[in-house]
Amino acid sequence: MVVALCWASFALAEGFPKGRWVDLSHDFADDTLYWPTADKFHKDTVFAGETDKGYYYSAYNLAAAEHGGTHVDAPVHFGRGRQSVDQIPLQQLIGPAVVIRVAGQIPQAGKGANRNYLISVADIERWEQQHGKLEKDTIVLFDTGSAQYWPDPVKYLGTAERGQAAVDKLNFPGLSPEAAIFLADERGIKAVGLDTPSIDYGASKLFKAHRELFKRNVPALENVTNLQALPEKGFTLIALPMKIRGGSGGPTRVVGFIPED
Amino acid sequence: MVVALCWASFALAEGFPKGRWVDLSHDFADDTLYWPTADKFHKDTVFAGETDKGYYYSAYNLAAAEHGGTHVDAPVHFGRGRQSVDQIPLQQLIGPAVVIRVAGQIPQAGKGANRNYLISVADIERWEQQHGKLEKDTIVLFDTGSAQYWPDPVKYLGTAERGQAAVDKLNFPGLSPEAAIFLADERGIKAVGLDTPSIDYGASKLFKAHRELFKRNVPALENVTNLQALPEKGFTLIALPMKIRGGSGGPTRVVGFIPED
Repeated sequence: MVVALCWASFALAEGFPKGRWVDLSHDFADDTLYWPTADKFHKDTVFAGETDKGYYYSAYNLAAAEHGGTHVDAPVHFGRGRQSVDQIPLQQLIGPAVVIRVAGQIPQAGKGANRNYLISVADIERWEQQHGKLEKDTIVLFDTGSAQYWPDPVKYLGTAERGQAAVDKLNFPGLSPEAAIFLADERGIKAVGLDTPSIDYGASKLFKAHRELFKRNVPALENVTNLQALPEKGFTLIALPMKIRGGSGGPTRVVGFIPED
Repeated sequence: MVVALCWASFALAEGFPKGRWVDLSHDFADDTLYWPTADKFHKDTVFAGETDKGYYYSAYNLAAAEHGGTHVDAPVHFGRGRQSVDQIPLQQLIGPAVVIRVAGQIPQAGKGANRNYLISVADIERWEQQHGKLEKDTIVLFDTGSAQYWPDPVKYLGTAERGQAAVDKLNFPGLSPEAAIFLADERGIKAVGLDTPSIDYGASKLFKAHRELFKRNVPALENVTNLQALPEKGFTLIALPMKIRGGSGGPTRVVGFIPED
């Protein structure tokens, strides 16, 4: 037993334990999903081919809204003077994380299925009954089963229409304001993440979960994926946003690290 | 002693050793430096203010070339059919890393200073004499002392002019093709990073260091910063690029993790 522990601490001396990395990010492309009123992602070719100097070269230009694809919302997105994306401390988006699976609670498919589900405090308490009370500074991810619908806008967002009128047709799960307050105030979590387009559910008009989280400087990861590849606890989340000065959010690469048994 | 080791392995059980995170990334803003021929970063305001529903809201649109600010070059940037930025395996840009400091070799300031220095195999061997042979799968960063000049285009790039004619005035240090081949073939490194605008030096016309590295699937981080905050070895680098499908590179958040003694 002592030998095993010493081997583990040897791995630690290398600066990092041994384990597996899991990518929790969608890619950015023409089919990346954005809010119906937001500019979509575009990649324009600057050059791609043989140069007159005899070698291949390719380069592109990018354009997009901050809030689409796998990204983080910074507190300033819904709170004047609050942290912008470059001001979120690195440690806020790095640390021990858990996955709370609520997909089974949500009527997922079939005609007239209403995915406008609000994740409740009871959903969190159900996880705690099995795994113990959420520790302070945990990063909490919710698997609502939505990632399986990406990048189909009808199934994932509730509509393929674009523009202001389409907003009323959004239909996807989100976090209830009560659960947001519970996670921030009662459990002291560092950050929250969902596999949906928004922390608030599709039917939300006042974005209360966003506002309650950001008042408390808890950033939110949206459109994360691949949560079924993670254990329910015992892994580390690392989310590194594009460092946009004064940005209200932005493209974020989200990865999980699962240590070896 | 055994007690100390067991404590260390307890930290490991949490998934992650204890230590400090260091941000090695410049931010993206109007003053972010780009190649003279590349589109600069722009952030346009979609909305920033009180909504008619009584809460504050802000959101922006982004546009930029892939290759500017702190970013990664993917092998396809200079090699047809090679890995695009979304195809670089996560593990390639995560792992044990070192800093080789060459700032003292380069005439940094004064009128007519020529910063077009080529990092040599001898510079790498000098580090090895002190710290031991570079281990396979290391990520190698070079501190050329350039980050102190950011974001002054004259001092950092060699010119504030823009457009094709300005390319002849670029003046900054880079990696010699011989050193690139040595690192890839003789040392089997995973990735390389510099605190300059390009892996090839300012005077380069044929970008041979890029081409030699990318032939061997070794990606390159450019415009990294804050390297003086890192030890010369014994830390972990984590570089997570924006996951642009088919991208030749892109904005990358680069961080270092320095484990506690």
